[in-house]
Amino acid sequence: MPGNPVDRGERAFVARLARVIPDRRAAPFGDDMAGIDDAYADLLWSCDMLMDGVDFRAGEHAWRDIGWKAMAVNLSDAAAMAARPVAALCAIALAEQLPANAADELLDGVRSCGEHYGCPLTGGDTNSWRFPTVICVSVAARVPAGARPALRSGARPGDRLFVTGPLGGSILGRHLRVRPRVAEALEIARTIDLAAMIDISDGLSIDLSRICDASGVGAELSTPLLERAIHDDARVLARSSGRSPLDHAMSDGEDFELLLAARSTLDIEVARPLGLIEIGQCVIEAGLTLRAADGSAAPLSPSGWEHRV
Amino acid sequence: MPGNPVDRGERAFVARLARVIPDRRAAPFGDDMAGIDDAYADLLWSCDMLMDGVDFRAGEHAWRDIGWKAMAVNLSDAAAMAARPVAALCAIALAEQLPANAADELLDGVRSCGEHYGCPLTGGDTNSWRFPTVICVSVAARVPAGARPALRSGARPGDRLFVTGPLGGSILGRHLRVRPRVAEALEIARTIDLAAMIDISDGLSIDLSRICDASGVGAELSTPLLERAIHDDARVLARSSGRSPLDHAMSDGEDFELLLAARSTLDIEVARPLGLIEIGQCVIEAGLTLRAADGSAAPLSPSGWEHRV
Repeated sequence: MPGNPVDRGERAFVARLARVIPDRRAAPFGDDMAGIDDAYADLLWSCDMLMDGVDFRAGEHAWRDIGWKAMAVNLSDAAAMAARPVAALCAIALAEQLPANAADELLDGVRSCGEHYGCPLTGGDTNSWRFPTVICVSVAARVPAGARPALRSGARPGDRLFVTGPLGGSILGRHLRVRPRVAEALEIARTIDLAAMIDISDGLSIDLSRICDASGVGAELSTPLLERAIHDDARVLARSSGRSPLDHAMSDGEDFELLLAARSTLDIEVARPLGLIEIGQCVIEAGLTLRAADGSAAPLSPSGWEHRV
Repeated sequence: MPGNPVDRGERAFVARLARVIPDRRAAPFGDDMAGIDDAYADLLWSCDMLMDGVDFRAGEHAWRDIGWKAMAVNLSDAAAMAARPVAALCAIALAEQLPANAADELLDGVRSCGEHYGCPLTGGDTNSWRFPTVICVSVAARVPAGARPALRSGARPGDRLFVTGPLGGSILGRHLRVRPRVAEALEIARTIDLAAMIDISDGLSIDLSRICDASGVGAELSTPLLERAIHDDARVLARSSGRSPLDHAMSDGEDFELLLAARSTLDIEVARPLGLIEIGQCVIEAGLTLRAADGSAAPLSPSGWEHRV
């Protein structure tokens, strides 16, 4: 069931919206969350819809885990903006043939994830129909007092690029039991001069290209640095996938780590306690480049996310 | 495609939530919208999910009309709370075989309805899959300065019951081209001492029973009064449905008029310019009663909404 994120995904949606709506809000179209209203300058919101067979597989995954994921991917959007989630809504279209306890477990997963991250469920809408289950969670999040939301558009040439954890192979389980980097994001925003941030939902290279596009910069990733950003799951998966661990780290989706750009003046002693892993830097020339240990450089095509479970 | 609103609908959802979550917000669970956070006491939000084959029929209705409805039913929730919609999100799972312009038209319907009622679309999430289209709109709304949200729970015995327009037969077209009573709600809340309010989405009798349940009262509807609250569409539909126009007015869903309770001290000269149609009153005894012109009374079972398009 291949999806087509370029034609129908977030970019196309954002492009459609941007064409028709003037943008006067705290966070512009195309970021992980949007501003609600000028009267609430510190309040952001977003929604994510998950479908059975695309984002999860009802016959295979526990309903509680599915509910957890539906909430967690939204909390990850809040983390990407360096905002604290404050409340959620959850709308569900349940497949009619589901056992009665499935809805309870699903909702319990949504709720328990929200509570774990300080984001209570405040309402919602439950329906049933004769097709697979669809879940849509909306989250509101608050930018801490005195801070600004982290946008995709603030990177400049020379900025250093970091991720909050190792990447790749999330399909082995982490894609479901998502751990959104909410506390980490707030700590990072408090500690360093954050230029741009995004959560890695569709894959490092494609999400990096989003920061580059929004900021009008290119990026150069370093193979030796990336070696330290490869998740063990990527190495496990590489044994059977025919792809390299590095390729998994750069292209697999649903890591839900954060990717951020910080000014080159950043003291590495400040970054280390935050658990940040450096992977490269922003450059003037548009596009992505991969620079090997021997100094040779090769262009890198943004690739990543396809619907898969 | 019969639905089951009692088991899986809003009531069950609310019951599940109410069991597990402490309720400290501006609007309690079970109202048309919920409070977001104590820090934003005047801000409410809600979401509604619409599914092809349940809430609309893709092969039959124009995508622009479907988009309009998806936004309008949320705006009607804001009207029910006497709150002014300020922003919306829209998540979509598009059926894969749709023509390319369907998404644009759908989104344009959502957006144009929002703009018509002062509620800009600020973001969203677009996906595709191989099942029928699902749309979920979330709306944030603001209670006017100095006012409180209109709840379902404020009715008392003796309160007079009104609707904002004639009811029944919405299936003949009004169920799609929904006109949410946003301006009317704000005007009503400014003008009269509003005890309780709800929008009639599932049918007069079932939505009235929700006000009664939340307020701990019963209600007595008057047949002669109700005669003036029957929509022409209900009379047209009655010619072929085997049901009476009155039955259509009391049981048909998707009118999206407002049902409200006002104190008995209300001056009818104040209510009249608001276009309010009186239909009965709240009483001490639980349950609904229908009182005929000859003074005889019969119990009335809340009936209404079933999935239908």
